[in-house]
Parts: sequence; structure tokens; C-alpha cells
Amino acid sequence: MRALANKLTNLRSGFGLPLALLTGVVLQSCGGDKAGSSQASGVAEDAAAAVYVPPGQHDELYSFLSGGFNGQVSVYGIPSGRLLKVIPVFTQQAENGYGYNEETKPMLMTSHGFVPWDDLHHPKLSRTDGMADGRWLFANGNNTPRVARVDLKTFETVEIMEIPNSAGNHCSPYPTNNNEYILAGTRFSVPIDMEKGGMGDASLDEYEEKFRGSISFIKVDKDNGDMELDFQVLVPGFDYDLANGGKGPSEDWVFFTTYNTERAGTLKELGASQNDKDYLAAINWKLAAKYAAEGKAHEMPANYYHNKLDHGTHTAKSTIKKTVRYLLPEECPGMMYLIPAPKSPHGIDVDPTGEYMVVNGKLASSLPVFSFSKMQKAIENKDFDGEVNGIPVFKYESVLYGEVKEPGLGPLHTEFDNKGNGYSTMFVSSEVVKWNVKDLKVLDRMPVYYSPGHLMIPGGDTKDPYGKYMVVMNKITKDRYLPTGPELLHSAQLIDISGDKMRMLLDFPTLAEPHYAQAIVADKVAPNSVKFYKLDENTHPEAVKSEKDVKVTRQGRTVKVNMTSIRSHFAPDNIEGVQVGDTVIFHVTNLEQDWDVPHGFAVMGANNAETLIMPGATQSLRWVPKQAGVYPFYCTDFCSALHQEMQGYVRVSPRGSNVPIKFSTGKPKPVPPAQASVN
Amino acid sequence: MRALANKLTNLRSGFGLPLALLTGVVLQSCGGDKAGSSQASGVAEDAAAAVYVPPGQHDELYSFLSGGFNGQVSVYGIPSGRLLKVIPVFTQQAENGYGYNEETKPMLMTSHGFVPWDDLHHPKLSRTDGMADGRWLFANGNNTPRVARVDLKTFETVEIMEIPNSAGNHCSPYPTNNNEYILAGTRFSVPIDMEKGGMGDASLDEYEEKFRGSISFIKVDKDNGDMELDFQVLVPGFDYDLANGGKGPSEDWVFFTTYNTERAGTLKELGASQNDKDYLAAINWKLAAKYAAEGKAHEMPANYYHNKLDHGTHTAKSTIKKTVRYLLPEECPGMMYLIPAPKSPHGIDVDPTGEYMVVNGKLASSLPVFSFSKMQKAIENKDFDGEVNGIPVFKYESVLYGEVKEPGLGPLHTEFDNKGNGYSTMFVSSEVVKWNVKDLKVLDRMPVYYSPGHLMIPGGDTKDPYGKYMVVMNKITKDRYLPTGPELLHSAQLIDISGDKMRMLLDFPTLAEPHYAQAIVADKVAPNSVKFYKLDENTHPEAVKSEKDVKVTRQGRTVKVNMTSIRSHFAPDNIEGVQVGDTVIFHVTNLEQDWDVPHGFAVMGANNAETLIMPGATQSLRWVPKQAGVYPFYCTDFCSALHQEMQGYVRVSPRGSNVPIKFSTGKPKPVPPAQASVN
Repeated sequence: MRALANKLTNLRSGFGLPLALLTGVVLQSCGGDKAGSSQASGVAEDAAAAVYVPPGQHDELYSFLSGGFNGQVSVYGIPSGRLLKVIPVFTQQAENGYGYNEETKPMLMTSHGFVPWDDLHHPKLSRTDGMADGRWLFANGNNTPRVARVDLKTFETVEIMEIPNSAGNHCSPYPTNNNEYILAGTRFSVPIDMEKGGMGDASLDEYEEKFRGSISFIKVDKDNGDMELDFQVLVPGFDYDLANGGKGPSEDWVFFTTYNTERAGTLKELGASQNDKDYLAAINWKLAAKYAAEGKAHEMPANYYHNKLDHGTHTAKSTIKKTVRYLLPEECPGMMYLIPAPKSPHGIDVDPTGEYMVVNGKLASSLPVFSFSKMQKAIENKDFDGEVNGIPVFKYESVLYGEVKEPGLGPLHTEFDNKGNGYSTMFVSSEVVKWNVKDLKVLDRMPVYYSPGHLMIPGGDTKDPYGKYMVVMNKITKDRYLPTGPELLHSAQLIDISGDKMRMLLDFPTLAEPHYAQAIVADKVAPNSVKFYKLDENTHPEAVKSEKDVKVTRQGRTVKVNMTSIRSHFAPDNIEGVQVGDTVIFHVTNLEQDWDVPHGFAVMGANNAETLIMPGATQSLRWVPKQAGVYPFYCTDFCSALHQEMQGYVRVSPRGSNVPIKFSTGKPKPVPPAQASVN
Repeated sequence: MRALANKLTNLRSGFGLPLALLTGVVLQSCGGDKAGSSQASGVAEDAAAAVYVPPGQHDELYSFLSGGFNGQVSVYGIPSGRLLKVIPVFTQQAENGYGYNEETKPMLMTSHGFVPWDDLHHPKLSRTDGMADGRWLFANGNNTPRVARVDLKTFETVEIMEIPNSAGNHCSPYPTNNNEYILAGTRFSVPIDMEKGGMGDASLDEYEEKFRGSISFIKVDKDNGDMELDFQVLVPGFDYDLANGGKGPSEDWVFFTTYNTERAGTLKELGASQNDKDYLAAINWKLAAKYAAEGKAHEMPANYYHNKLDHGTHTAKSTIKKTVRYLLPEECPGMMYLIPAPKSPHGIDVDPTGEYMVVNGKLASSLPVFSFSKMQKAIENKDFDGEVNGIPVFKYESVLYGEVKEPGLGPLHTEFDNKGNGYSTMFVSSEVVKWNVKDLKVLDRMPVYYSPGHLMIPGGDTKDPYGKYMVVMNKITKDRYLPTGPELLHSAQLIDISGDKMRMLLDFPTLAEPHYAQAIVADKVAPNSVKFYKLDENTHPEAVKSEKDVKVTRQGRTVKVNMTSIRSHFAPDNIEGVQVGDTVIFHVTNLEQDWDVPHGFAVMGANNAETLIMPGATQSLRWVPKQAGVYPFYCTDFCSALHQEMQGYVRVSPRGSNVPIKFSTGKPKPVPPAQASVN
């Protein structure tokens, strides 16, 4: 196998080149056979080769799939469809202690207290000049409104900001072309109390008068990625569903689909489906920022958490923010317009040129494509048909470029390749439809299983899509894989879009529910990937960097253990003097300085998870023992041939006992006599 | 693609037949090319075809990999290496509410309180006549000693039993050939207080005198799988590492490796590596059961939890057990023996015939194979060399069949194929070594990356292995996949063992740390897989089975919401009259009666997860709102084209307000006037 790997390496021109290019040659050389009786298996074999990444080789692309109701981000390799990692973002992950250990608990703090879960919908890569740059990944928490930032050097969540005056932070987070802003829109409108701040106590009967939506403008620091809520735009009390932004000529603009413009406060299934048209909201974000800078913003009280991971201590800290600025569209002419769109639209997608905005009307029989240049002209000509809360509404025809006729049933989302084509998912008719953006003609259809939601083409929402692959994220799985009882993973399909016709390559199950994904070529991320943390950059106040400095100290009813781990022992590994009901905090510093040598730390009976400590880092676990006894702790991540021996004990004596604090870093007793006489 | 799928279906003789059989033909027909310049890619292409499962087809085998420090079981399809499901067992899983909602919280209760995590090492399939029967999967919690049972009809954890007098429940759970018992051995010894029960408060200096191990005998009900702790055997204060049981002639026996027979209480890395030999403990479980039945067992106080999921209510209930019976080996002649084994042995594996016991001595340079028939003779002849705590120790040579010489460095585990061969992992030299069980000759070597721990051949620990595939679970990942920062998934490799030489097929990353796995052919599990729960079998006391019965009731400061979900609305969807500080409990019944239509339920700001409700089931979420406001709740699992509309609100008024309890099942308001005049 080594020989094969070497041969393959020699044959390959570079990192990530897929085997398909090689096997293409092989298959051509026996094309005669393929055309014969085994054509079907030949096609399947071709697909097999296209997705196979031989042992020792790497995938061509990273793809970041939202975990939906698991609250995390899943990283899958493309084209293999292999799960490479789950990044904990909004949800506790006992596996590495995220949200359980003392360092990461603050990351999940909100104005509602500790919220250990969220519903993560849209991962969005940071951008430089409109292209994914591989620095950060932003993602929304849909349920308790939050926006997170993952650092792609470490694949860690380093920042989570709560969004005030929002409920169901769904059309979020949209980064502008240089991350000037991350835009985050509310899905559900709520009564916003501008006097006291936050949600007011309103009756649901007062929906129409009192409920409002908000769109948050979050500034991103160019150098370190830190977010800051600059201001919000308070918008009519519709439901705001999805967002996407302009490029090129339209790059100052961002677009939001709305539904429930009926402002139904109950049974939206019917109540929000009555109007024949809802709206696409168009916001000039640059003008909004200008208005905010020029003093048009009001201020109201607020109460929201902003949690950041400190680099040196590797510890999250929360800051509570107390005010928020806001703009009212009626006071900001030219900032916001409404485009009539087919009933209850879902996705809004802007093509790579920035000229065409596609609205995916889930209940509509055609796919309207709006023109940015016509929109500009309509603004100039005031080609309006009334207004809503002071926001001008365009005439439908004045901004429409054209419609893709009968694309399929239940259009939800569109992405684009690098050859002028759009690809739209049809939820109801379970297919992806390829169409030409210029002439709006349908070019190809591919059945997908079942009920596709989002689809993703690497770079498909940027000005220069990578093309080549498409991942379709299906909502219904049923019989696609071996059955696993009533609860099934969701189902993605990988499709080759390099040719005129789409070619199905692979079904792969995905964790929880991916709502969207983004992908990026490996060499924009892999070379910057951190392998371990440098021990001498560890500024955690409880870190000990040498075994000689380990200690166990008592202060009142708290016992603090400052300890180390290195293959294959903890220091100290024997601790006495803890009493029932004490709060014991283990601060474990992993002294290793090499890649892939984490140590795990767990203590029996703790009402807590383990914590997984990366080389060079310090992590802390809290434990309140309830019964006397001698409790083992051990390394939970197999680290060496003597991993099973990497273990210690804490003696817990009854409350009030006089066993003093005592610890040892371990000296083996002398060799005992011959084994058979151990008795 | 549909055409291709049809063609493939026609070509295939049945469910799960891998593409390899087809492509084998194709490849042979162009063998001339393969022998030419592109041999390397031909081999890789062959491997690609061998692991590729075309869209619409199913994997051949289910494999159940332990999640190790994530506390769960991962289900991977073989040969594709695709993750099909994560089964929550010992760890909270916010994704579906396991350990967060009211129904499943009791599952994680222990004598130490709620323990939301564990370290799951060994999944073991239930057996009938020594063969995996696909009914249940047993698994151990290593940290806070527990044994769980997963029902493979639903892929749900239905039972968790705490193990008293144990610490580090590692050599666990070993099912005998008809699940008469599940055996669970302690890894770490602890002071056992036989007067008061449980762990005593002993100094670590008293290790040699006061610390003991235990092996638990858990009975399994033949019909419903329910577990019951029958008795324990208290054993010398060693560390007990791994277990495996006999077959055929040896089926009354079970074997445990031990280390730290030095009884070092500190720095085991050195202290437990001093003796040249440790032991393999052999226990006659049938005789032990007989002794226990015949009154040899003592009884001591205990305090351990036994948690079971009730079928009808789909709710876990805890029972607290207060005594445990135990046997002392010194009082039970013939029940337990010790076999000297190479220093600090790890895995113990018994070959399919039941005659050969392989001890994997991680620090040894050879692999000793013991003979069961020689052991029987040695018992007869009293061929002993002393004793430990009254337990006879065999002479090494009297039970040794022979040694595999220089197999590699750091042998950890062995499994067997159906042709008389063993396959052993070498942790240090990073390879798998194939050897013949009869003549002990090494037949083949395969480098694996890096540092393999367990390996798994489907059925490889039964009397009739399936053979064909081998999964090697590696402990170090490093550069095998695209890098994901300091924290990496572990790495498995799939190897074809059908030929004389092993053939590497696939690298696939695995969640957390798989310590062991078992696999079973799909048709032993898939046909029994439940698709949904029948609503009329739902006996949950808070279930409502019709929208007309939904209600919201207040009792003191608790507000109970008995509600329903069905595409695409909740009933009720508007709730008023909740006050800040109330405890609100949502009992949601999913009225759907079809496969793959779960609804998720989440409420903004809850200090809790979501809960995912399978069709026909009822699940309950607790929420204590902290601030006044109007809180949205919504369905978190995309269920229909109108999923985005499946939403409601709860109004939370300030404490002491006089808003009465009020709820509505939703009537849309009349169609509003034309959209542009909504203002």
C-alpha cells in the first residue's frame, strides 16, 4: 500500500488533485468494454472513482455544512463526502468539554442565562474582494438570536454575539464583500419596546400595531475578525426569511425575502399564505451605514451578551452591552425598497455578475429574476406602486428581468456556476433544475432524493464560482441508507456540474439538518491550520508549565488542583484531603508540544463532561463530590502504549474529616517480590 | 441517474451486494491495460469500486463504533465508511433532546446525581447461540460505571444500569453466547466497604490492603432484554483491562487481562510496569452462577441506579437498588484461575473454535497463545505455581500453546477471520499482522496509519466470523485528512481480507475515539427497523391525540401546555398568561403517522435544548422564562413546503400581571386589502 501511495503521489501533479483525472485515462483505454454490456457499472465505476480519495491523499475542498438543529458546523471533505470534523458552536459538546468546562461556558451565556443549544442555519465564509478568503466562518443561531465566528486556523468558535430585538435570527449572517458588515435579519417579528429596550409585553392581538422586525449591522474588524453591533434597521412586522448580497454593480446592496406581509400572528400556515405576492426587501447597506454615521440613528436600551475567546488564556469572557442604535427606514430615504415577489418566497440569490436577483417562491410556478439595473432605473424614475411604512414598493414589471417558466414545484434555493447558469432546488418535485441566467431557459434536470432544501456550489454565491461540484441537501431521507429506526440523518447528494448535463456522484448522510453550506478549496485553509498551542504563549492564570509547580490548595470549601498532563501521567496523580461537598476545580495544563497529542481528563461521578486539552492549553473542570470514596481520574484519549496507566485518584473524605490536603506526583514503589507470591 | 439505478438494480442479485462484484468483471475484461503503465491507478480504482455504494443502494453491513470520549455509538455503513447515525447513550445530545427533555433525563441519573457524559468503549451485539442476532447492542460507560442497552429496532438507548463497586468499567460488557450474562469488570480498583457498601474513605497508602476489583454478572431477560445485576465476584486489587469469552468447548469461561498486579497506587506508568508478567484471569461464569444460586453469595448494602425506557410512555424511569450480592473467589474453588501473561497485557481474544486464547501484551515482543484444552488439563493436574488471594496461578508453560514470534511492536488486539487466521494490531509499529492460528506463522503485514488500537472483523469475536472486511481503528490521525486545527477526528481504515494478502480499501475519519466496534449483516437488523411509533400505543400521561384536546393549564407557578404538531402547525400556537419565573412545561405530541416526519420543538431563550419528536411520540421541554416578552417557538426540522410558517408565540408578562391563561389553535385573519396599501 505504501508503494501504491508513493506511485500515486508521483503521478499526481499536486495537492488535492482528484483520482478522477487519473482514472479517466484508464477508463478511456478500455472504452470498448464500457460501451458493451456493462455500461451501467461503467458509469457507476466512473462515479466511484470521481469521489474516491485514496488513503493518504486529501480531499480537494473543505465544505462547511450547518448542523441545523444540532447547533454545530459539520466539516465534510469534497468529493469524498467524509465527515472531517464537528465544530461546536452554539451547543454543548461533551466530547471536548465545550460548554461544560470553565473556559468555554461563558461562550453560551445570553441575556436569558446559559443557553446550551441553538439551531444553526447558515455558515458563511469571510470574504476579501467578494471571494471566500478562508479566514473565518460566520454562522447564525436561529433560536436565541446569536451570530458566531469560527477561526479557521484552529476550527474553534472564538466569538458569539447575541442579537437584541430579534427573534428567529434566520436571514443571517450575510457578510458583505469585504466583511464590512455581517447582516443579520429577524425571522419572527416581536413587540420592540423602544423606551425600555428589548421585547415588550404585548398581546398577540396587537400583532399588526406593535410587532416589528430588525436587521442588524455587525461590523467586523479587518485584522482580528472581532464583531461589534453597529446599528439596527427596524423594519415592518413581516417575517424575514433569507438574505443575500450584491456583487459588482450591486455590491452596496443586500436583499431579504419576506413572508407574512399579511402580518398574521397565528396559524401562519394559512394566515401568511393569503397574499398573492410578498416582498423582496432591498437595502443599501452602504447608505444605511452613512446615515448611521451621520447622526440619523436613535438609541435605545438593550441587554445582550458578547462572548469572546481570549487568545492567550484560551478562555471565553462575556461582556454585557446596554444600548443599541437604530435607524427607521421612513427617516432614511433611498435606503430601503420593496420588490413584489411571488407568495411566501424562501431563498434570494444574486448571480455572480451582480445583475440578477433570483427569488425562489416556494408556492410559485415560476422563478422570477429581477434586474439590478432596472431597479436602479426604477428608483430614478420613482416607478413605485405605493409604500409600506414609508418604504417605497416597486412596480413588479419595472424591476423584473424575466421568469424561468415552469422550473418545477416548490423552488427553494438557487446557486450559480462559473458558466452563467443557475441551479435551483425544487422541494416538492424533488429535483435540481439547471437554467441559463441570460435566456432563462431550462437546460437540465436531475432528480434528487428527497425534497431538497439548500444546494451549494463551491463559491456559488461569490462573484467567481469554483463550479465543478454541487452538494444538494435533502430534507427527507427515508430509504436512502440502511434504516436506523424512526430517526434518520439527513441526506446530501454530490453532483458533478462540470459538463453540460449534471452527473450524480454520491449520496452521503449528514448530521442533523444542514440548511446551507459553503465550500472552499483546501489550500486556502489547510496551510494556515494550527497544529498545537505554544506552551510559552499560554497566559491562563491557572496554568502550570512544569511538573515541579503543580499544587493542590484549599480556600474555604474550594479545592484548586493545578496539574499537568504528559505521556503518560498526570501530576499530581494522588490527591487527598478533599471532603464531600467541596467544590474541586481541576486546572489541567497539557505540556505536550506536538500535533495530535491531546489528553482527556475525566473524574468518576462528576456532574459534568470530560475536558479534552489540546497540547499547550489549560482547561478546567468543576466537580462537587457527593459521597466519600476514592475516585479515579484518567486520560480519556488514547495517547501512548502506556495510556491505560495514565490515571490517578482523588480521596474524598466525609465532611468535617481531618485528612489534610496532600498530593503526590508519583513515585513507583520498589519492585515487589515474584508475582506468584504477591499474596 | 434513475435509469442507472434501475440498471444496477437489475444487475444486482439482492440487497447489499457490493459493486465490487460487478466491477471485478469489468476490470478483468480490460486487464491488459491494468498491467500496463497505470497499474497503480488501476488498484486504486479497484478499491474505489469496492467501497462505493451507488446512490439508492444500501451498505452491506452495519458497523457500530464506540464513540469513546463522546459517550455515544456511531453507526457506519460498510463498505462505504459513511456515518449513518449517532446513537446517544451516555451523553446529552441537544440535537434530539436526549438528556435535556423530561422523558430522557432520568436515563442519565446515577448515585452521583445527573451525569451527562461518559466514556463509551465497547459496543457488543447480543447473541443467540454464539452469533450476533441483531436484537440489542450493549455498551459500557467507562468513567461512571454503567452498562447500557440499545434496542436495534429503534436505535434507541432503552436501559442504563449503574455498576456498584466498580471504577473505570473498562473490561465490559462481555455477553456470553446466549446473553445469559453480561460481564462487566472494573479497570481501577477501589476500597470497597463491605459493611456500609460502596467506596470507603481509605488512604492511597493503603492501596495494597484495602483496594479491590469487581466483576459484575448482569442477567439479561431472554424476551425483552431487561438487565438485572445478579451478583459480583470481588477480585484482587489489580487493574482489569479487557475481557472476552469462550466458545464451543470453552463457552462456560470468560477471560480478563490484568495489569498493575504490582498494585501500585501511583505513577502506574512506571509502577505498574515492573513485573515481567501480569495475569490473564480465567473465570468459569457458569460455575460462578451456580455458586451464587447455591447460597455462596454474601450481600452488602449498595446504592445504584437502574434506568429504563418505558415502551408506551416513551419515558425513562429510575429505580434505586440497595443491595448487591457478591462471591469471593477464595470461597469458590474451581471458579477462577490466573494465567501468567506478558507484562501489562491489553486485549484478550478467543479464536472461533474456542480453543485458543490470544493475549496481546502491549510491551511484549511475542504474542502468546494459550490453549483451553491444556488449561483444562492443568486444572486436572493442579499444575500451579502459587496463588494470589487464594486464586491458583498456572505455570506459564502448562497452559501455553505457543507464541507468535516477533509479530511487531506493541500488540494490542486480535480478531479472527473464517479461515483460521488471526489479525493483530501493533500500536507502536503501526501495522496489522495476519498470522495463522494453528502454526503461529506470520502470513502478511499491512501498514496502517497511525498507531492502531482495536480492529474489527464482522463477527470476528464469534464462532463463525463473516470475514471479508476488517476495520482498523487508529489512535493517531495527524496528516491523514485535511487538517482541522489542533483537534482531529480519529482515523479508521477499511481493509479487504478476502484474499491471501490484505488489501487497503479506504481511510475514513471517525467521531471522537472508537475503541471497539462490531458489525452485522444488514438483513439481520434492517427488516426489523421501526419506522414510527403508533399513536394509539402512546400511553404518555400528557399526550393529546387530537387538536381538539389541546390545553394550557396553570397550577400554582407551573403552566402545563399539552400541545400537538402536524404539518405545518402547532396547536395551540398562541399562548398568553405566562409570567416571568413560571415553570412552563410543553408536552408536545407529534400526530404524524408516517416515516421520517419528526417535528422539532424549541422556544427562544430556553436554558435547554430543543426536543425532536418522532411521529406518534410525546416529548416534554421545561422552560423558566426570565424576562417579559413575546417568545416565538417553532418547528426546527424542515417538514414541508410550509415549514417556515410552523411557528407560534408565548406571551410572558411580568410577575404578578393579570393576563389570564389564554390560547388559540389559530384562525387566520381575513385576507387583507391589496398589498401595497397594507400601511
